[in-house]
Amino acid sequence: MSTGKVTIGSFQLESGDWLKNVELSYESLGPSDAPVVLVCHALTGNQYTVGTEESPGWWSGLIGPGKYINTNNFRVITFNVLGGCSGSTGPLTINPDTREPYRSSFPNITIRDMVHAERKGLLALGIDRLHGVIGGSLGGMCVLEWGLLYPQDMNLLIPLAVTPYLSDTGIAFNYIGIHAIETDASFHNGNYTKSSDIKGFETARMAGMVTYRSEKLHKERFSRKIRDDGLFEIESYLKHQGRKLTRRFDANSYLTLLHAMNTHDIGWRRGSIEIAASHFKAKMISIAFTHDLIYPIEDIRFFTLLVPDNHFYMVNTRFGHDGFLTEFEKWGSIVTIHLEAKAWQSFKLQS
Amino acid sequence: MSTGKVTIGSFQLESGDWLKNVELSYESLGPSDAPVVLVCHALTGNQYTVGTEESPGWWSGLIGPGKYINTNNFRVITFNVLGGCSGSTGPLTINPDTREPYRSSFPNITIRDMVHAERKGLLALGIDRLHGVIGGSLGGMCVLEWGLLYPQDMNLLIPLAVTPYLSDTGIAFNYIGIHAIETDASFHNGNYTKSSDIKGFETARMAGMVTYRSEKLHKERFSRKIRDDGLFEIESYLKHQGRKLTRRFDANSYLTLLHAMNTHDIGWRRGSIEIAASHFKAKMISIAFTHDLIYPIEDIRFFTLLVPDNHFYMVNTRFGHDGFLTEFEKWGSIVTIHLEAKAWQSFKLQS
Repeated sequence: MSTGKVTIGSFQLESGDWLKNVELSYESLGPSDAPVVLVCHALTGNQYTVGTEESPGWWSGLIGPGKYINTNNFRVITFNVLGGCSGSTGPLTINPDTREPYRSSFPNITIRDMVHAERKGLLALGIDRLHGVIGGSLGGMCVLEWGLLYPQDMNLLIPLAVTPYLSDTGIAFNYIGIHAIETDASFHNGNYTKSSDIKGFETARMAGMVTYRSEKLHKERFSRKIRDDGLFEIESYLKHQGRKLTRRFDANSYLTLLHAMNTHDIGWRRGSIEIAASHFKAKMISIAFTHDLIYPIEDIRFFTLLVPDNHFYMVNTRFGHDGFLTEFEKWGSIVTIHLEAKAWQSFKLQS
Repeated sequence: MSTGKVTIGSFQLESGDWLKNVELSYESLGPSDAPVVLVCHALTGNQYTVGTEESPGWWSGLIGPGKYINTNNFRVITFNVLGGCSGSTGPLTINPDTREPYRSSFPNITIRDMVHAERKGLLALGIDRLHGVIGGSLGGMCVLEWGLLYPQDMNLLIPLAVTPYLSDTGIAFNYIGIHAIETDASFHNGNYTKSSDIKGFETARMAGMVTYRSEKLHKERFSRKIRDDGLFEIESYLKHQGRKLTRRFDANSYLTLLHAMNTHDIGWRRGSIEIAASHFKAKMISIAFTHDLIYPIEDIRFFTLLVPDNHFYMVNTRFGHDGFLTEFEKWGSIVTIHLEAKAWQSFKLQS
């Protein structure tokens, strides 16, 4: 396992704005000559998919030696997204022009910007072949854009828990978060002292959390139980999750990524979802999870039918959206089978 | 049509606390000698179900001369709930002990408190017979408690869009609102100048709004459209709804009512939901709406099967939870048929 940063230099965004001296942090595992699997992380994820023994990464149950994505057979790379706060260029980065952190002056970025940046990152790392691209939620948005921006560059696309565009309801939940953060007096237009001072950031996290898991699971876990301090168990859970995130994540970065998610629409500037979908070249393995509130299975199923070479899987789970972060025994082998069965095709990324 | 206030005097809450000089505001329509239909309003509703021509009430499409609840045939009474902010005793009321408004010192109340207070209100108005009790959401919670606290007092219970207890997910959404309001610097522990200063109250309203309507309807109305000011249409809609509520509603009252909703569990102190359900005496007409996120039709159906004399109706709608406030042509006649068909039984409320 290795971690590091790669410099991709000046980078023009979809908006036309330029970012100077862009860096992406990454984690890399597996043999350097093995087929490469690129992992794209979700909203509050990072590049540490496998992590260390003391601090296991968010997909350490899926990826590793002998695991569903077997790092004896595959090289696995994960970047922290552009705009993130785990080492890649984002609102916490010093703006070379002002020698101050970008904070809220960090430009608006799109999912497509993230993908273009990652591709430059791969090339800078000397990786010019991709076997598969996999990710869920915001990571799944990146997977879909990888398949359309660079359709010749991979054998397999494995989007999980993602629709071809963020729905109005998804935008609505993001807006609750944006509004909660930006109207908090401690936010100071992005010039806050610490993210953990911003109570509205806790609210924003809670508004995310309620969409990640199903009512069934909440009922099983909490059952209206009340604690000694008078809070319902689920209130205490949300409070804890809110606090936890504001202690490890940057509020400006969170806003940047929410706005990027809002831009997700594969049909944008491509005529329509239907036209865009017809342009996928790679084999798509799409995995949807029951009780996913924002990315419903029906919408994912409908979309995959438009994709030339598609395989659709539905996972029955009480987790809902968070299904892609858990219960790997239910769907990990789908990933294994497709990654290992698909004949390896050699090709070169075009730089 | 008449409106007014009725005094029910000192009133002991379930918690053991006493409220002095309790008043309830009401709206009354229809012949004074006609069978009485009691309407219970929802979280941000009030006693103005029919209202005036210039300012129609929230159920003016359902209730009135010749309408589904025909005020030529029925007398319709609606109280503003205890703890509300439309004239009934609540956080805005002057506490006779301190001569200051209660604000956040207003005691915690329950759905059962609301029902006990309403019954005293009816008796004080000289109304000692009830034909039916109808309401949706928080109003539906009151309907269910009416049927269990005073099972002999009515012929018909008509709960809409309500489950026998508020689910953990429901409590979670309420908590987002509570957290957003209470952590807002302008809230000042309830001693705010104006509710409209509290941006977190806007956030709270938004967290409610996203549960009231379905993704289908959002998509039909907004379709990811972006306005000239750069906001998505649905963002602008939520912003508008947030502002609108904070200009007409009191934040402390909102918190009081959220906490009351959280107490909703007909099984509480009655053994279980199943035991409680077996004790209903009135005929129950339960109406559930498809795509209701917090009060799902399956849970309502399951519950009604436990009720001795139950009729269950499912309304297909893109509105979801807000179905009970709209599309009366779809379900209003269910109400009419049962209200008018059920033989009128004369009986006296026991004071």
